[in-house]
Amino acid sequence: MGLIVQKFGGSSVKDAEHIMNVADIITKTYSDGNSVVVVVSAQGDTTDELLEKASEINPKASKREMDVLLSTGEQISISLLSMAIEKLGYPVTSLTGWQAGFITDSTHGNSRIKRIEKERLVNELDKKNIVIVAGFQGINAYDDITTLGRGGSDTSAVAIAAVLHADLCQIYTDVDGVYTADPRIVPKAKKLDEISFDEMLELASQGAQILHTRSVEMAKKYGVNLEVLSSLTRRPGTKIKEDVSVEKLLIKGVAKDDNIARLSVVGVQDVPGIAFKIFSQLAAKKVNVDIILQSVGRDNKKDISFTVSTSQKDEALEVLDSIKNIIKPDEIVADEEVAKLSIVGAGMLANPGVAAGMFEALSDAGINIQMISTSEIKISVLIDKKDTRKAIAAIHDKFIV
Amino acid sequence: MGLIVQKFGGSSVKDAEHIMNVADIITKTYSDGNSVVVVVSAQGDTTDELLEKASEINPKASKREMDVLLSTGEQISISLLSMAIEKLGYPVTSLTGWQAGFITDSTHGNSRIKRIEKERLVNELDKKNIVIVAGFQGINAYDDITTLGRGGSDTSAVAIAAVLHADLCQIYTDVDGVYTADPRIVPKAKKLDEISFDEMLELASQGAQILHTRSVEMAKKYGVNLEVLSSLTRRPGTKIKEDVSVEKLLIKGVAKDDNIARLSVVGVQDVPGIAFKIFSQLAAKKVNVDIILQSVGRDNKKDISFTVSTSQKDEALEVLDSIKNIIKPDEIVADEEVAKLSIVGAGMLANPGVAAGMFEALSDAGINIQMISTSEIKISVLIDKKDTRKAIAAIHDKFIV
Repeated sequence: MGLIVQKFGGSSVKDAEHIMNVADIITKTYSDGNSVVVVVSAQGDTTDELLEKASEINPKASKREMDVLLSTGEQISISLLSMAIEKLGYPVTSLTGWQAGFITDSTHGNSRIKRIEKERLVNELDKKNIVIVAGFQGINAYDDITTLGRGGSDTSAVAIAAVLHADLCQIYTDVDGVYTADPRIVPKAKKLDEISFDEMLELASQGAQILHTRSVEMAKKYGVNLEVLSSLTRRPGTKIKEDVSVEKLLIKGVAKDDNIARLSVVGVQDVPGIAFKIFSQLAAKKVNVDIILQSVGRDNKKDISFTVSTSQKDEALEVLDSIKNIIKPDEIVADEEVAKLSIVGAGMLANPGVAAGMFEALSDAGINIQMISTSEIKISVLIDKKDTRKAIAAIHDKFIV
Repeated sequence: MGLIVQKFGGSSVKDAEHIMNVADIITKTYSDGNSVVVVVSAQGDTTDELLEKASEINPKASKREMDVLLSTGEQISISLLSMAIEKLGYPVTSLTGWQAGFITDSTHGNSRIKRIEKERLVNELDKKNIVIVAGFQGINAYDDITTLGRGGSDTSAVAIAAVLHADLCQIYTDVDGVYTADPRIVPKAKKLDEISFDEMLELASQGAQILHTRSVEMAKKYGVNLEVLSSLTRRPGTKIKEDVSVEKLLIKGVAKDDNIARLSVVGVQDVPGIAFKIFSQLAAKKVNVDIILQSVGRDNKKDISFTVSTSQKDEALEVLDSIKNIIKPDEIVADEEVAKLSIVGAGMLANPGVAAGMFEALSDAGINIQMISTSEIKISVLIDKKDTRKAIAAIHDKFIV
């Protein structure tokens, strides 16, 4: 018995049948004696339909008006879900973002939550109401409607859990938890019962698309206990929290990201300041660079390689082209046929055997490693895209199964 | 040059093409040097689609949640219309009901506007923005979303025109003005250039479904100059105002209402208090009675007849049944095969020839009059429903053409 925040995504409320299923989960939680706040996204295809309407009229519409339009999606969801709960005979009230007190900055389309004025939420809970809140949205200081951008509803749920000091924040998705690898690629992948915030963050940013990093970062910052679980199976999911009790598994998972490109600046002068020129210009154009590799200089020349997301490849190439007469490379090469694999787990660097084991597994499988990057809890390698599945299986076999 | 409020209904914004047409009307008005506030309804079928979604989940959903759901319809319209105006290169901002300051009472589904907190509207106009406001909606004192019920968007427009002291409030519909009779029934019907509030009120309540009586009443109360016109033809429409300059036409129009039923309580005792008993009981059950006719007593017995809307016929019969042993009638008769025709125009009672002319026209056409009711500016008769078209044509010929 306590206060539980539950978040349901668009696929969980896509039609009347799914909405009744979600209403059943919510009212069961309430019947068990808990106070319940629910955060819900727009129904399945609603957002796409609204985007289509907008693009027919003005493909370059302002972000302010896009926010006014898109925020109706969650408003439809909260009312329908509340009606479903009314039908089951429970006390319920729906709240839009502004009614729930979400105050954000003014970055339309990608706002940050500044604070939650929680009086209304607290009042509704005091009245023993189940509270259904529209995720993804808020208002700025001028009472204009804003939206939170990607992963916004997860962030809304964690923010409410933080300000209300909820005992648990459950994120319902269409998978039943966090796995050691993508189960569609590695059939032997295991569901984790628990994982730490930092490990989840590395997995999330490495392409395990379950929880947006932003919501995990917020949960870590405010100490919100998270659970990822499925609205369909209703089995226990994966708990994400600060202190994971027993570290049975050193490696918590294998993640892949194949929406990346490798760029190489070949044969630049081996003098100080070249790397600074390249990466300061990239930063000025807001190109996010991930792994960086610099070859040891030879014959007074060196190579600098780095990875960017595929969507920023062309911008990165333009930047390199614009400074060509300063850095004077022999050649600039771009390659999209690459993938990044990462293994994530606490204490990685303190266990040198882990990196060695990963390289051994890849070597045994005949896979060439192009680049390597390591952190406290992560080791990433860049490989040929065609080797992705084989490499994930090899690493998983080595460490997890 | 001045401040103009324009209202567009759901059919005027039903798709991208219609929205661009409306944007063109608005920006032309703005280009002429006017400040412009626009009130818009939900797109064509949006409301029906939302009602369908609700009824799939819970046909007995609370009115509070229905308001949360339905108010998204206008929010979609205001954003799309704003995007269309952005495309034409004009400064614009959309406002939902609560952003525009609409404070209502708490009667969900049929709220009354209590006040408009006009600061935001004034600020946006000061910034030279075209302001697009969601009609039909507001919030109550607890920040809950409310809707205004039938004719709500017209009322929103007139209310804004009233608080901002607008020079004109234009109601765009799919007809190009107020006619002397329904042009689909009387091909010779003429469009009126001007009509007074009182005349419009009588026409509206008599079934000329152009403007809801509520908005006309508000316009009369606050002296808002109205104009009814078409968003498609773009010709001058009909102006509705307090002082109509020249009274060329005594009769301003013929209206019909055939959604009515006549109930007769035949052969009750001709003693005081019988009518009181009947009509006080009907009022207690909120049955709206229109025309009342009481026969002159004979043999110590009399008949009392009255009309109600078809939708309340059964309730009215139940009420009569419940007091049968008090009023002791010989018989209770209900007849739905009736229609009410009204002619509307100022100074009607001061011109006794008008009533006589109406009765003469009906008599010449061989149409029997069942009941008669008169007011300062209206004469209504009850006739057989099958005679409706013939009767309208006869009256129109007599007075208007």
